[in-house]
Amino acid sequence: MEPRHLLGIEPLERGEIERILRSARALREVLRGPSKKRDDLRGKTVINLFFENSTRTRVSFEMAAKILGADAINWSASGSSQSKGETFLDTLRTLEAMRPDVLVIRHGASGSAGLAARHLGCAVVNAGDGAHEHPTQALLDALTLEDHLGSLDGKRVAIVGDVAHSRVARSTSLCLRRLGATVVLCGPKTMLPSAAWEGVEMVHDLRQALGEADAVIALRIQTERIGESLFPSAREYARFFGLSRRTLAWAKEGAVVLHPGPINRGVEIEPDVADGDRSLILHQVESGVAIRMAVLLRAAGKLEEDSHG
Amino acid sequence: MEPRHLLGIEPLERGEIERILRSARALREVLRGPSKKRDDLRGKTVINLFFENSTRTRVSFEMAAKILGADAINWSASGSSQSKGETFLDTLRTLEAMRPDVLVIRHGASGSAGLAARHLGCAVVNAGDGAHEHPTQALLDALTLEDHLGSLDGKRVAIVGDVAHSRVARSTSLCLRRLGATVVLCGPKTMLPSAAWEGVEMVHDLRQALGEADAVIALRIQTERIGESLFPSAREYARFFGLSRRTLAWAKEGAVVLHPGPINRGVEIEPDVADGDRSLILHQVESGVAIRMAVLLRAAGKLEEDSHG
Amino acid sequence: MEPRHLLGIEPLERGEIERILRSARALREVLRGPSKKRDDLRGKTVINLFFENSTRTRVSFEMAAKILGADAINWSASGSSQSKGETFLDTLRTLEAMRPDVLVIRHGASGSAGLAARHLGCAVVNAGDGAHEHPTQALLDALTLEDHLGSLDGKRVAIVGDVAHSRVARSTSLCLRRLGATVVLCGPKTMLPSAAWEGVEMVHDLRQALGEADAVIALRIQTERIGESLFPSAREYARFFGLSRRTLAWAKEGAVVLHPGPINRGVEIEPDVADGDRSLILHQVESGVAIRMAVLLRAAGKLEEDSHG
Repeated sequence: MEPRHLLGIEPLERGEIERILRSARALREVLRGPSKKRDDLRGKTVINLFFENSTRTRVSFEMAAKILGADAINWSASGSSQSKGETFLDTLRTLEAMRPDVLVIRHGASGSAGLAARHLGCAVVNAGDGAHEHPTQALLDALTLEDHLGSLDGKRVAIVGDVAHSRVARSTSLCLRRLGATVVLCGPKTMLPSAAWEGVEMVHDLRQALGEADAVIALRIQTERIGESLFPSAREYARFFGLSRRTLAWAKEGAVVLHPGPINRGVEIEPDVADGDRSLILHQVESGVAIRMAVLLRAAGKLEEDSHG
Repeated sequence: MEPRHLLGIEPLERGEIERILRSARALREVLRGPSKKRDDLRGKTVINLFFENSTRTRVSFEMAAKILGADAINWSASGSSQSKGETFLDTLRTLEAMRPDVLVIRHGASGSAGLAARHLGCAVVNAGDGAHEHPTQALLDALTLEDHLGSLDGKRVAIVGDVAHSRVARSTSLCLRRLGATVVLCGPKTMLPSAAWEGVEMVHDLRQALGEADAVIALRIQTERIGESLFPSAREYARFFGLSRRTLAWAKEGAVVLHPGPINRGVEIEPDVADGDRSLILHQVESGVAIRMAVLLRAAGKLEEDSHG
Repeated sequence: MEPRHLLGIEPLERGEIERILRSARALREVLRGPSKKRDDLRGKTVINLFFENSTRTRVSFEMAAKILGADAINWSASGSSQSKGETFLDTLRTLEAMRPDVLVIRHGASGSAGLAARHLGCAVVNAGDGAHEHPTQALLDALTLEDHLGSLDGKRVAIVGDVAHSRVARSTSLCLRRLGATVVLCGPKTMLPSAAWEGVEMVHDLRQALGEADAVIALRIQTERIGESLFPSAREYARFFGLSRRTLAWAKEGAVVLHPGPINRGVEIEPDVADGDRSLILHQVESGVAIRMAVLLRAAGKLEEDSHG
């Protein structure tokens, strides 16, 4: 069986996305059950290669790997040979020579996961590459939305925030559209792409974006960038683009709220929304482990066609 | 079976302490045996969430978890979403959504483990919270003392050092008193609590503290705090409160010496005492792994009533 | 069975080296196979105690341990009690009291692994101690060379670079000579030992060193030391001592090239050589995991006499 990379949502057809979601839904029952241990990946090694810090994503992959019986090894860039001047490709090749089965990689440069896949024999899973893609985030968003909205065909989802610099916005909007949803992007001019993405609306007004929305995804604002160039202040950002009870009222009744985390309370989301009964933020975290289980099985060529469904 | 937190010694009755010690004694034989692997916690996940660095405590919990067959995952605060401005509770809730069975937490703020337990569904084990409690340290101290003194009923134990700022002093004195021992606290005025702890003697004179003591526990001195405000110099501390062959002679013949580690040789303890035949310091370390095995089993609702005894 | 340290190549006789190589060759097939999991070390605990950062070596040992079924625990010096002023021996004794079976140790001080072995009851494996020895590197070099040259009896191997400060040069030259090879050391005067090593040629001229060489090992140049005192510039180093297609032509036809990694492209080795068909650099990395599997089995007293052969 040939290992299968997950470099982004872009190369995935709708049927393949649905296959992953179906498996994740079944695997989530394992995660929720009393004994979280399977043997599917026993004898397989998963290396988590993180050039950017992200404890939550790394732990999510590590749990997924261990629950499936794989050996999980963490390789963080700090203290590694990268800091000794080794090139990115030399690090990858060295690591591959140790014969891992799956390489989970996060890197600040767009395209780094694809570069890895072109040069390595093992399966590569993109855990976020620059402003390019973050496919497991997109899949967990889709799984979470389907759990609450049913089929996404014809549903309307608003993505609000620093869209231009967000791999989450890119991957998630691609994924939701493949599943039949309509996506509208919203943010100040400095945070929206200069050219519109194919098939996606862009608006600068939150009220307009939320109108008729079944769901809204608030993106994390890099607060260190506000006050610099993208926006005058966090307070003004919150006023014009933050999700609050006041602004959420513009969406459809019962519209649900997602956020990739970690959240900035009082900036892109108010506490009463984050902790309210329409918030699916923690549901997303749980779905994330299940998605990563499915993705690791797929990478190892062990995702069954439909037996999990 | 309901998971059981270990937030401190305060909520534990004597019978419960004795049950944990009994199990730890049996589990220590596993640790000493040729094959250190059991299946009790197979399918369970233990997350070590350390906001303060402590390699030795983290490794002790990690070994305990792995020997019992659990998956152990380390989540350190550096490089995590905490450094991205996430609140403590949001970190906890995120982590809980990944469905661990036991959360081992160390944090600099008193009460943080209790806060975690009130908000989370999984079992919480306090691995040290500020100046509040460090219950597994207290239990390992008790186990070590019982091994060498037998029942602690009527025994006299002196705790020497920076008592006021020490969670070890608090937890251990509570634990030893519950087991029937008399505890005397000793240190300079700046290092003793302003109000006496219930049922505990406080003295400023080491000779008086050690008189008739069956055991003495030297606390670790934060050398960076000496010279500042708590004490004029490490040399003077050693002279008045350090354990040496000279001062130890004031205790009962054969009195044993404990220290939570890491030790400052020549400050709170002289090398000839630390390495002498009355020192139980390494015995404490071994007991620590066994105590943590028992505590993790208990947290998972798998500590048998008496079958280990 | 008595645990067996691996402190260096110096104490190993040829037969023992060959036994380890034979086992590693068999174990490498496990690493290459579809299921990388054995039970040989189930119930054993391996602690990786790294005082110097080296992600690649740590990961190599961690993979070896896990494939063999051991529990592997990483103990890095940063954030540990070492930074709280604990002595090296107190750290070791604390760690030993937790009853690991094998301690893998890397430390900047020559002799630290031997010191550990003298004081501890568990088996000690030296993963590099100062400028002294790095035995698993030597063994993986030997394994790699034998794979490509057959028996090393009468073969000629040149080691080029900062020999004087290199534990790799020391361990590898000892190992290759025990296996019957002739070793020639080459580098500028500032990088060669002041006194010749027994039985080893030393030359300052790369052409002379490579003449009749069956293999050449380029050492990693600490670029931060160049420009200081050891050599005027990286560019001049590359010109006089770097391996390029031009200089490699001086060796025997088909001579192979090794490097312990991470490589400095354009300094001690040119990309066309590093990536060329005579480069065994990645082969070394793979051999490294296999060697560490054999060494861990040996440390646990489980290396069979010849059944792997």
